[in-house]
Parts: sequence; C-alpha cells; structure tokens
Amino acid sequence: MRLRRLQAGLLIAMGLLALPALADTPKATPTAKELIAKSKPAEWRTPDPKNLLYMQLPQGRVVIELAPDFTPLHAANIRTLVHEKYFDGLAIIRVQDNFVTQWGDPNDDDNGDKSKIKPLGSAKHTLPPEYTRSIDPKQAWTPLPDGDVYAPQVGFSEGFPAARDPASGREWLVHCYGMVGVARDADPDSGNGSSLYVAIGEAPRQIDRNLAIAGRVIEGMQYLSGLPRGTGPLGFYTQASQRVPILSVKLAADLPPAQREKLEVLRTDSGTFAALIEAKRNRRDSFYTLPAGKIGLCNIDVPVRTASSATAGH
Amino acid sequence: MRLRRLQAGLLIAMGLLALPALADTPKATPTAKELIAKSKPAEWRTPDPKNLLYMQLPQGRVVIELAPDFTPLHAANIRTLVHEKYFDGLAIIRVQDNFVTQWGDPNDDDNGDKSKIKPLGSAKHTLPPEYTRSIDPKQAWTPLPDGDVYAPQVGFSEGFPAARDPASGREWLVHCYGMVGVARDADPDSGNGSSLYVAIGEAPRQIDRNLAIAGRVIEGMQYLSGLPRGTGPLGFYTQASQRVPILSVKLAADLPPAQREKLEVLRTDSGTFAALIEAKRNRRDSFYTLPAGKIGLCNIDVPVRTASSATAGH
Repeated sequence: MRLRRLQAGLLIAMGLLALPALADTPKATPTAKELIAKSKPAEWRTPDPKNLLYMQLPQGRVVIELAPDFTPLHAANIRTLVHEKYFDGLAIIRVQDNFVTQWGDPNDDDNGDKSKIKPLGSAKHTLPPEYTRSIDPKQAWTPLPDGDVYAPQVGFSEGFPAARDPASGREWLVHCYGMVGVARDADPDSGNGSSLYVAIGEAPRQIDRNLAIAGRVIEGMQYLSGLPRGTGPLGFYTQASQRVPILSVKLAADLPPAQREKLEVLRTDSGTFAALIEAKRNRRDSFYTLPAGKIGLCNIDVPVRTASSATAGH
Repeated sequence: MRLRRLQAGLLIAMGLLALPALADTPKATPTAKELIAKSKPAEWRTPDPKNLLYMQLPQGRVVIELAPDFTPLHAANIRTLVHEKYFDGLAIIRVQDNFVTQWGDPNDDDNGDKSKIKPLGSAKHTLPPEYTRSIDPKQAWTPLPDGDVYAPQVGFSEGFPAARDPASGREWLVHCYGMVGVARDADPDSGNGSSLYVAIGEAPRQIDRNLAIAGRVIEGMQYLSGLPRGTGPLGFYTQASQRVPILSVKLAADLPPAQREKLEVLRTDSGTFAALIEAKRNRRDSFYTLPAGKIGLCNIDVPVRTASSATAGH
C-alpha cells in the first residue's frame, strides 16, 4: 500500500500512469502521458539516420543521436570510424559512479598493450575542439526561463540541452544525464571520437565547454548507467573480464530502412514540450502537494517514442 | 595516450591524483587530494554510531548516515525497525534509471502477497511528514553563494546539502545524488521508514519538500547505483529473482566498537571544505582551461574517509 501510492505518485510524475480525474484535486496537473497522447504528429521529428548510431552491447542496443549542428567535425569523424568498424570489438572500459561511463580501445591506455592499439583508419587523429559555436538567429532555440547556476541562458536546441552566453555570442551543449562527450588528451584538439563517454550521474556541468559533446543517448541509456562501477582509479575496470564488449556500432543510414529503429523525438519547440516542462515545474496532484515552481535544464527529459506509438518510451 | 590524459585530467578533477607542479600552468588549481592532505584532524567529524546504518548486500556494505536534526521522528522509527531486524531478508525492489533505487518489503506492493507483509513490530505506522524544519540561528549553516534554480538559498548543514527560504523561515534537505528518502502513501503522514529510496541520477529537486529525507549514503553508493534497471513500470523488478536481497541492516551503535567502520566526514563548515568547493568552482589546470566560475549544490561531494587515513574515500 505504502509502495503502491509512492508508485502512483511517481507514475504521475514520470508520466507513465493516466489517472482518472481526482475528485479531491480538480486542478491536478496533467500527466506526461496525457499530454503526449494529445500531441500532434508534426510535433515529433524523425532523427536523420546519418546521425544515429546503434551500439550493440550484450545487454541490448544503445541508440545515440549525433549533434552535427554543434560538433560537425566530430560527427563526421565518428561516422568514418563507424563505417570502418573501428568500434566493433572494443569495450566499455570505465564506469565511474556519479560521473561517466566511457568506451574505447582498452589498449589505448596506460596499462594497455600499445602494440595492439587499433588504428584509426582514415579517420582524423586530431580535430578542432568544437566546444562552443556562434549564436546565430537562424538556429532553433527554446529558452528555459527558470535560470541556471552555470550559464547566463539555458534552453533547448533541436532536442539537445544547451546554454548561451550573449556576452560572448557563444552557445554550447550541456553535460546533462545521457549526453555523450568526446574523451581527449590534454591538448584541446586531441579528441577525435574514438573514445566517448556518457554522463550517468548529477550533470557534471563544471566540465561544460572543456570537452566536445557529440550527441545524446536516446535509447538504451539503462545499459550504460546500470553497470557495476569499476574498482580501479576513476572507475576503470581492473580486469579485462569486467569490461563490457561492444559487439558493433553501426550508422542507421548504412542499414536498410527495414532494419532501422522507428524512433521519434519530441520537438523542443513544440507546444507539447512546453506543456510537459510546465507540468514538471508546477506539478500538483494527490501525491505532490507543493509544486517546485521551477525546473532545472537537466531535470527535463526530451521524450522519445517509437513511431506509430502513442506512448513515450523515454 | 588519449585516455591516459583524460584520466589525468579527471584524476585532477576528482582529486585522486596529485600531479607535480605543471611548468606551463604555474597557477594550477590544487587538487582535492592535495587539499585534503593538508586538512587538520579537527576538520573531520566522526558520525554518531546511533546515526549510522550498515546495510549489507551481497555486493558489499552500504553505510547510511541518518539526519535526526532534520527528521528526528523518522530516524527514531528507522532505528526501531533496525533493532527489530525489520529489513533483514527484505530486498531492493526497484531501480528506475536516472531517478531512484528503492528497497523494502516486496509483498507490500500491488503485486505482492498481502498475507505475507512483514509486520512493523513496535515501529509506528504513520509519522508527521518532517519535510522541512524551522530555521534556527543556532543551527550550523554553510551557505553556498553560487545560486540555485529551486530554492532562495542553498548550502550545507552538518554534512548534508540543504536549502532555505527566509520568507517562510523553513529549511529542508535536498534530493542530491546519494540522499536517502522515505517512501510513502499519498497521505503525507504515511511514510514510516520501512521503505526507503536513494537518488541515483540527476538530483530530482522537484520532489524536495514533498518527501521526507532520512539521510545520506556515505559509503557503498556504487552498490545501489550500479544495479541493472528494473524493466517493469517505474523500474520495479518484475521477477523475484531480479531483486537484490538485503542480508541485514544494523545500527553501528548496536555493534561492538571494534566492528564499526572507522569513517570520518569532512565538516562542511571547515576551511578545507570551502577550499574544495572553490577548487571545483574555478578549476584550471593542464586539462581544464575554462573554469566554470560557479558550482551547483549537488555537484559538491562531502568527502568521507577512513579514520587514520590521509586520503579521501568518497
């Protein structure tokens, strides 16, 4: 009973349960499920298959949407690596609690066998950092008016959480949960996409603008976050047997259409997305009696669903 | 190489690596390890054994520090439950990605066998909510001046992240990563500590002041965060075999001193803690070239170490 009602409250909060109208709370906040059920088809976008990576792990498939509008050179290099099967047979090498899960070549590490490092093929070894880009009025931008500790302005740009500094005229992607970044050497141009990480805890905002962000996990995040933490320094796995093998990474565009995931992402400039944000900002129902009144950028999920389905999958 | 330097940078960021002075960055921010190495013994506190729970899982031990200054009735009820071995043999029943891990009685749920619900013994079935407390000038309070999206003021109170609203005169614990909350029914007084949850993703700040917070995980958090996510609604495990059994929960005070963990927590009103916050807020070294300039409340770890050790363990 105790758990059931926590469940119910959280179901409401997470938008997974459509409750009938509550007699005692006639103005109960609509649930995410209710809001999404009323969304229009045009409010959803189908990510470009050229921007979708399918990373196959033994546990299941992780789908990553690249962000070439922010990091075009990194997206291009990652596509090259994928085309040449660079990631196939590599591994998840590190899971540091409340920080990142990282994958790449286990031999390209202090304790690795340098003679066995996998060559990058025709991919570039260095890239310009692409930590920020110029603000351009032509860019889609949905501001979040709730404020932010780290940046003058935050909001969403084409499905990704982002920040802006009007003083410098720069915009950048933010390290929210599920965002995928590019590991690098000390030199800012030393990242090339051959080793990537994903944020799995409290958004590590203090590293924003110090590392390039390649995209976001839009499906299968639980396979990256729910792994045993590595016991070595920084969460590196100390034994090869602990690493999770990457069976393959493919680009959706390289597969026949019938083999592609039918995923849709809610447009962040849509009315339904605005309504979802407001429902989370000021939730009031039979369980939550005190609305927060505000919502943080990284507390907002961008819904993802399987096409032709009326329910959110994320 | 690429990974090694990311490692080095992150080692610096996480305070796990003491680098020699870098010739090219003479003003490199001190590392957390360096700052902690210079701390004084009086800057550390030994949590009261009456406030420490040892939750033994097959994977290892989780140590939770209760917060009786904020939730005294919940702390007392949880101690009663522990004394009477209520939790022994129960289980982790739910892991919802980017939200919470929850434990309690699997039968006290919609799909459970109601006839097998474990009785609460002499513990109370309902408690006043204890979501907030009055601000009192006598309380220790270390303000964080960086701002916050959700609360007028944030800071630390005796090792716990907290928020204040001077207008209402209230103070409350904040749902940062690792904070332990009290599951409840829809009625605000229906939480009793027999089912608890811990935040495992982006701090779910929108539920602050809607649920009582009982304390914080100070050791073994990785055993709660690194579990496979449940595949049922809200991350509930759908099969009994997926649940992680709780072997026992004991109060440190009930054990002979020799069997107690020798843990110390850095005082949040200490100079070293202030220096650690500043080092994270404005980190600049060979890896991080652009300091954030700000730090969020839930991006700050309160260090925990084993007594007589010079290194931080958290």
